[in-house]
Amino acid sequence: MKLDIRSFSTTQDDFRKELDALLAWDSVSDAGVQSSVENIVNAVRSRGDEALIEFTNKFDRRTVSVSSELELSRDDLEAASGRVPADVLEALEKAAERVRSYHEKQMEGQRSWQYTEADGTMLGQQVSPLDRVGVYVPGGKAAYPSSVLMNVLPAHVSGVKEIIMVVPTPDGEVNDIVMAAAYIAGVSRVFTVGGAQAVAALAYGTETVPKVDKIVGPGNIYVATAKRMVFGAVGIDMIAGPSEILVVCDGKTDPDWIAMDLFSQAEHDEDAQSILISPDADFIGAVKASMELLIEDQSRKDIIKASLEGRGAFIHVSDMNEAIEIANIVAAEHLELSVESPEEWLPKIRHAGAIFMGRHTPEALGDYCAGPNHVLPTSGTARFSSPLGVYDFQKRSSLIYCSPEGASELGKIASPLARGESLEAHAMSAEYRIKG
Amino acid sequence: MKLDIRSFSTTQDDFRKELDALLAWDSVSDAGVQSSVENIVNAVRSRGDEALIEFTNKFDRRTVSVSSELELSRDDLEAASGRVPADVLEALEKAAERVRSYHEKQMEGQRSWQYTEADGTMLGQQVSPLDRVGVYVPGGKAAYPSSVLMNVLPAHVSGVKEIIMVVPTPDGEVNDIVMAAAYIAGVSRVFTVGGAQAVAALAYGTETVPKVDKIVGPGNIYVATAKRMVFGAVGIDMIAGPSEILVVCDGKTDPDWIAMDLFSQAEHDEDAQSILISPDADFIGAVKASMELLIEDQSRKDIIKASLEGRGAFIHVSDMNEAIEIANIVAAEHLELSVESPEEWLPKIRHAGAIFMGRHTPEALGDYCAGPNHVLPTSGTARFSSPLGVYDFQKRSSLIYCSPEGASELGKIASPLARGESLEAHAMSAEYRIKG
Repeated sequence: MKLDIRSFSTTQDDFRKELDALLAWDSVSDAGVQSSVENIVNAVRSRGDEALIEFTNKFDRRTVSVSSELELSRDDLEAASGRVPADVLEALEKAAERVRSYHEKQMEGQRSWQYTEADGTMLGQQVSPLDRVGVYVPGGKAAYPSSVLMNVLPAHVSGVKEIIMVVPTPDGEVNDIVMAAAYIAGVSRVFTVGGAQAVAALAYGTETVPKVDKIVGPGNIYVATAKRMVFGAVGIDMIAGPSEILVVCDGKTDPDWIAMDLFSQAEHDEDAQSILISPDADFIGAVKASMELLIEDQSRKDIIKASLEGRGAFIHVSDMNEAIEIANIVAAEHLELSVESPEEWLPKIRHAGAIFMGRHTPEALGDYCAGPNHVLPTSGTARFSSPLGVYDFQKRSSLIYCSPEGASELGKIASPLARGESLEAHAMSAEYRIKG
Repeated sequence: MKLDIRSFSTTQDDFRKELDALLAWDSVSDAGVQSSVENIVNAVRSRGDEALIEFTNKFDRRTVSVSSELELSRDDLEAASGRVPADVLEALEKAAERVRSYHEKQMEGQRSWQYTEADGTMLGQQVSPLDRVGVYVPGGKAAYPSSVLMNVLPAHVSGVKEIIMVVPTPDGEVNDIVMAAAYIAGVSRVFTVGGAQAVAALAYGTETVPKVDKIVGPGNIYVATAKRMVFGAVGIDMIAGPSEILVVCDGKTDPDWIAMDLFSQAEHDEDAQSILISPDADFIGAVKASMELLIEDQSRKDIIKASLEGRGAFIHVSDMNEAIEIANIVAAEHLELSVESPEEWLPKIRHAGAIFMGRHTPEALGDYCAGPNHVLPTSGTARFSSPLGVYDFQKRSSLIYCSPEGASELGKIASPLARGESLEAHAMSAEYRIKG
């Protein structure tokens, strides 16, 4: 199948313009969605369970009459696990173990600390887990058990005591693999609600769904809009854009491998973005040829084609230094360095969500089981944000404990500064602690 | 002066209702502000300097004709420092030194790490500073030099190379102490612009103002609305609500000291909140008596009175355990533990922005010079967010470098999971790396 993928080179005069056009992505903010989400959120906030049941019956075509029907028990999850094929269940368990172990390493830097100064004044920071978090899990066609592991396990490792999962079950249909993932990851409670109504229930609490401190997890435009709306009342994670991969290859990896790595991103949805950068023009040609052959057998070939032709690209560069420069402009969610000695380039990479190093590290391994989180900053936000991690489920409190001597010395610094800002009560409060 | 401050006790039946009413705070989102900010942001985004100059001349009553007039040089800052009284300048320098040193300690947990598994697979996380950040500094009456130190120094310590400060100068008036703070903290460039137009310039860049990766710093409702609007294109810090203090006292601190500590919060503005909790009813009475005497001499007594009577409270509890329980519900920005052995209560405190321990640690010392940051989560958001810190100026990239053996084993886990999610290209991309 012929693929019409845009292709350009850094030697073109308009290269930077082409690149910017390729990367441009504005999430649509539809006034209709906005106002319908506002209505749903307000209704659940004021009428609680009653509204939650109404919206769930309407949008998910269910016939719930009492709120207790919205909850799945630990036994329900266990029963669902029993229906999952043995190889999948075993893979889920192994993946969970690896993800847990990576996030345990991540905890090492995230501990409370304090130090005492010569005059006895103690300063520090107390790090503690959030009390209760909500994890949104999409239902229906985009039900991803791996996403349950990736959102729940870091919360667990960081010490969050209560993890509330919400997942819509349209027409009452429960996804067994998703429930098995919830069982393995150890969520505290599961409610079969979704959409903006589920986000509102988690943010404000209802008679049945407990109010949480933070909501994480992916969702459609209604879920994303609701999360943005409740932000402030609760914490939220990043609102994700379409998924992207940038593969930098020196031209010495099997072209079929690279073709399939690009497909694995493109198959997500039509807005997903797959870009290949190489200093080897012949190799780019070889990858394109591989793609045109391999796509024939792909079950999601229509999505792959639409994604590659709409948002994909081949970029020919003069050398690896230039490739890395472009990688820093793109600040990709997934950066694959399919090159000989990837560790040599690492210090030059300033922006990327996750870096997949070497020819044997396709993104797919990171998506499921390598250990690091697959929730990553998209659309260039890796310039200023990070993968989901244990730090997203913790918060810090500063500690200050002045000795009488310390307070006296600090008071002498604070007083003129407070008066410089015309804050006299601040000055006097500090001055009371200055020794006479 | 008589002060009419609400006072209640945990023995009341409606205590929790009273407490919730006391803490209720909804930030006003005005449609008029929203639409005018939208116009300003769009104009600066599309017309750059031209629009930035127009709005600056209009809102700050200035007569700028070319964009170079918007920038202050390092010499300008040095000259401003020279005009600051010696005691204030010295206090600024000492405060900067302490804030810097605290944030250097904070960096210790924030380093890159990696580990290698038995089969040679390497996993880790690369931690790096943001490239360029923008710091918003309010001008006019609420010009706080301490806020310059608190926002700029952690960015510096975390390794940010370019720190762009924006500060409005209404009628062309420059605040020398603010400029001295900028000089001491070491900002890279200063532009005399403010409001939504300054936020838009930082978020999208103009011919003169460089585009940044993240914007931090306090501002009025226009600034806050603009920050919320550009979030996603750049990172932003927390949007702050009114400042609050919760003092827990065992009744053995000088009532004048506690009265002044409560004033130091109340004098910020009429929406600020000061709450005293004590198991000693007589002590609460003594503090109230102190306040009614001390307020007479306060230069900001009208603001203090309005704040205390509108949003302040005395809460009588049965014992210290109950006091700490309430502190966890309030999740205050500033929690002062004016008690005998504050360290004993620390493990029980789950939520607070900063904890001021003992009788000699008034909030004012933390505001200026103790070392920890004074930018703290307000309105109960300490349940899920943290003081501004070096971590706000860094981001992380996950690292995955599979050995051929590691990739082969991981491929066997990823493949069934990908097929379970109907993502065939993911499965095949992983399977290519399984050894035959």
